[in-house]
Amino acid sequence: MLLELLRRQVVAANQEIARRGLAPHTFGNASGVDRSGEKALVVIKPSGVDYSTLKPEDLVITDLDGNIVEGKLRPSSDLDTHTLLYREFPQIGGVVHTHSEFATSWAQAGRSIPCFGTTHADYFHGPVPVTEPLTAEEVSSGYVRNTGAVIVRRFRAEGLDPVAVPGVLVAGHAPFAWGKDAADAVEHADVLEYIARLAFRTVALNGSAGPIPGHVSEHHYLRKHGPKATYGQR
Amino acid sequence: MLLELLRRQVVAANQEIARRGLAPHTFGNASGVDRSGEKALVVIKPSGVDYSTLKPEDLVITDLDGNIVEGKLRPSSDLDTHTLLYREFPQIGGVVHTHSEFATSWAQAGRSIPCFGTTHADYFHGPVPVTEPLTAEEVSSGYVRNTGAVIVRRFRAEGLDPVAVPGVLVAGHAPFAWGKDAADAVEHADVLEYIARLAFRTVALNGSAGPIPGHVSEHHYLRKHGPKATYGQR
Amino acid sequence: MLLELLRRQVVAANQEIARRGLAPHTFGNASGVDRSGEKALVVIKPSGVDYSTLKPEDLVITDLDGNIVEGKLRPSSDLDTHTLLYREFPQIGGVVHTHSEFATSWAQAGRSIPCFGTTHADYFHGPVPVTEPLTAEEVSSGYVRNTGAVIVRRFRAEGLDPVAVPGVLVAGHAPFAWGKDAADAVEHADVLEYIARLAFRTVALNGSAGPIPGHVSEHHYLRKHGPKATYGQR
Amino acid sequence: MLLELLRRQVVAANQEIARRGLAPHTFGNASGVDRSGEKALVVIKPSGVDYSTLKPEDLVITDLDGNIVEGKLRPSSDLDTHTLLYREFPQIGGVVHTHSEFATSWAQAGRSIPCFGTTHADYFHGPVPVTEPLTAEEVSSGYVRNTGAVIVRRFRAEGLDPVAVPGVLVAGHAPFAWGKDAADAVEHADVLEYIARLAFRTVALNGSAGPIPGHVSEHHYLRKHGPKATYGQR
Repeated sequence: MLLELLRRQVVAANQEIARRGLAPHTFGNASGVDRSGEKALVVIKPSGVDYSTLKPEDLVITDLDGNIVEGKLRPSSDLDTHTLLYREFPQIGGVVHTHSEFATSWAQAGRSIPCFGTTHADYFHGPVPVTEPLTAEEVSSGYVRNTGAVIVRRFRAEGLDPVAVPGVLVAGHAPFAWGKDAADAVEHADVLEYIARLAFRTVALNGSAGPIPGHVSEHHYLRKHGPKATYGQR
Repeated sequence: MLLELLRRQVVAANQEIARRGLAPHTFGNASGVDRSGEKALVVIKPSGVDYSTLKPEDLVITDLDGNIVEGKLRPSSDLDTHTLLYREFPQIGGVVHTHSEFATSWAQAGRSIPCFGTTHADYFHGPVPVTEPLTAEEVSSGYVRNTGAVIVRRFRAEGLDPVAVPGVLVAGHAPFAWGKDAADAVEHADVLEYIARLAFRTVALNGSAGPIPGHVSEHHYLRKHGPKATYGQR
Repeated sequence: MLLELLRRQVVAANQEIARRGLAPHTFGNASGVDRSGEKALVVIKPSGVDYSTLKPEDLVITDLDGNIVEGKLRPSSDLDTHTLLYREFPQIGGVVHTHSEFATSWAQAGRSIPCFGTTHADYFHGPVPVTEPLTAEEVSSGYVRNTGAVIVRRFRAEGLDPVAVPGVLVAGHAPFAWGKDAADAVEHADVLEYIARLAFRTVALNGSAGPIPGHVSEHHYLRKHGPKATYGQR
Repeated sequence: MLLELLRRQVVAANQEIARRGLAPHTFGNASGVDRSGEKALVVIKPSGVDYSTLKPEDLVITDLDGNIVEGKLRPSSDLDTHTLLYREFPQIGGVVHTHSEFATSWAQAGRSIPCFGTTHADYFHGPVPVTEPLTAEEVSSGYVRNTGAVIVRRFRAEGLDPVAVPGVLVAGHAPFAWGKDAADAVEHADVLEYIARLAFRTVALNGSAGPIPGHVSEHHYLRKHGPKATYGQR
């Protein structure tokens, strides 16, 4: 029953990737996790299926190690990245992978996105980090899982909180974003693309532009996320 | 009765923000003021409500100090900026805040937009100014009101007329625009985005591009705004 | 009777400006000329009227000196530029003025657009020229007519043929394009915007990019315009 | 009978060029080849016909030397490039020529597109090559055929496999792409435009950005093309 709801959420999140233009062709995928049972279950898009024809029953269900529990189609080729993120970041409930144009360009340039403004600060606490490239060893010994591993390594090395920093750029590849559920993850993927566009033009206009002062970014982040949140109808 | 009309104008201006793509998600808001009564009344968008479902009765009505006079929803989190602008710029009747992409990029770069061409000159007399960043003191002692205060400070310091310069870039944040009513304000917000796009490409093509000669910009500004205006069917 | 046809062509050309996104708001206009009678007649858009509601009977008819022959509305504020171009370039039958984004950015940057590729060469023989800025004297003694005068001066100085070079950038202002009729003029305005976009990115990718070799550009130009034209179903 | 199917595929591919915005006006064309008979037959778009009104019976059928076998309209002016590619690259079944904006800008800049990321690597094995400009001799002695000849010369000089590198930039002109059939060719033309956009922004963000490591690009290329392909529902 809950799983039925999750299936529908995951279909909606995948369609939202297409509707917002975050991934050409089928270069993107969304998943969600149900952690309420004894064994957590991951619901993910099948590989290479068009967003527009995707139905809840097409989705693939796996456990946190990627073992298929249900589903006739092959899961997204990025499955092992999703499951590793769910294992390592227990606070998150949805993961989205896109090839959105500006975020992917920052990833290809190997640059993290500085916090140049309040829109960024409302969603991401500090820069959007970029991973290191995968080593030859990591590529040959489980490329997709190790894509997750370089993300986690970066977060551990910097002491980053995946709730406060809900996305990342994988160097030479593309962005991943996450959130409390699949809908939240796709919103973060969309905002990430938006701030990547703003930041691209900011550095073009001012090559030595620096991040906004800490007192401004803290205020914005806490306005939406702190205990005294003032944004929206809560 | 008049207030009913104003409500409809403010709903239309908020929808125009969305229709023209000036603000992703709900990152934008429009308000109008009725100065005809003994006490001026501000009509503003509620916080975090989607533009497409916004109805006149959802709007919040406050006095010029931001005290709520009518409305069940929480007003836009930017209310105190709007009311300060209405108090300090008594000539204006509408205020619009957007996160339009190119204007926001100039704001993030901390650069004012030079008057590179006649389209700019038709609407803005001189550069579109950029504020200073807010100090830590200003952030902690009334962030939203002080966002208005840095705008006004910039206009006073430069001796700018808010009728001749109907918009501003708040450094590290985004643009505000205003006009004789909410519809005029949203048109200025849209033109500001357009000239920000042109100016972005102008500096990319010619890093040492200068403003158009004063005799050209004066001619254009007066063509639309002076007593001998020749544009349109007046 | 012929004039009725011309009215419809000019309405269609003005709507095409809007449909192709070549001018925001009402920043653009198209006209056509009927040179078949004893006295040539110019049919032009009225000033400040929305493209979507424009009807053949709204158009203004003038002689080549801009004297109104028929029409209740005020003609486009750019009328005197159109009529001067019709007087000085007797080969042309339609004129279009836009504020299309990339062509306007080149105009603001004060740079002519080099012939970087075959698409350019198919339509423009050599660079798209940019005028000089108007002097203070020219602005005060007939600004709109002198906008046409600086265009013609540039063509005379360079020995350019307005049939081979069907458009120009007015420095610090925006583009004008023309053609054998209003439909041809709007196609040239659209191609001009397209090649301005290509050229913008070409110089960003290669700051020292030069024009294509003369033997290639000649071949392309003559392919579409020479006596042995091979393009299309002629 | 087979030819009827091919006609429909070629119409669909031409319409896809327009639908994906890969060529303004009629600056683009798609063809397919039927190699099943004794004599291979090429089906190609007629010259200067609008995509939206194109019907299967409008197409022109030629042999591999460009001799017309069937069709009342004049074939695309680029016919001789298509037929030369079919003669020299016997593995390919469809050719598409576009003037898509970013790929054309790279062609105008005379730069090949480095493999900056995994999306590129999924489709193109190594950089997207750029040809040399045509010499005066090549222009005068069969310009269109020699456009194909400079493409082939570049592939031979670099030892490139047209199956692994399904597209090219013709210097100062525009891209060509190909594939196993016309639909595959148009998909490659679309992906080429996408990676050209990403690469444009990558070099703007990081002028010294290098290609992704060989172990990553090999992995991605083989993931989609090798015998152990894991992408999609195969």
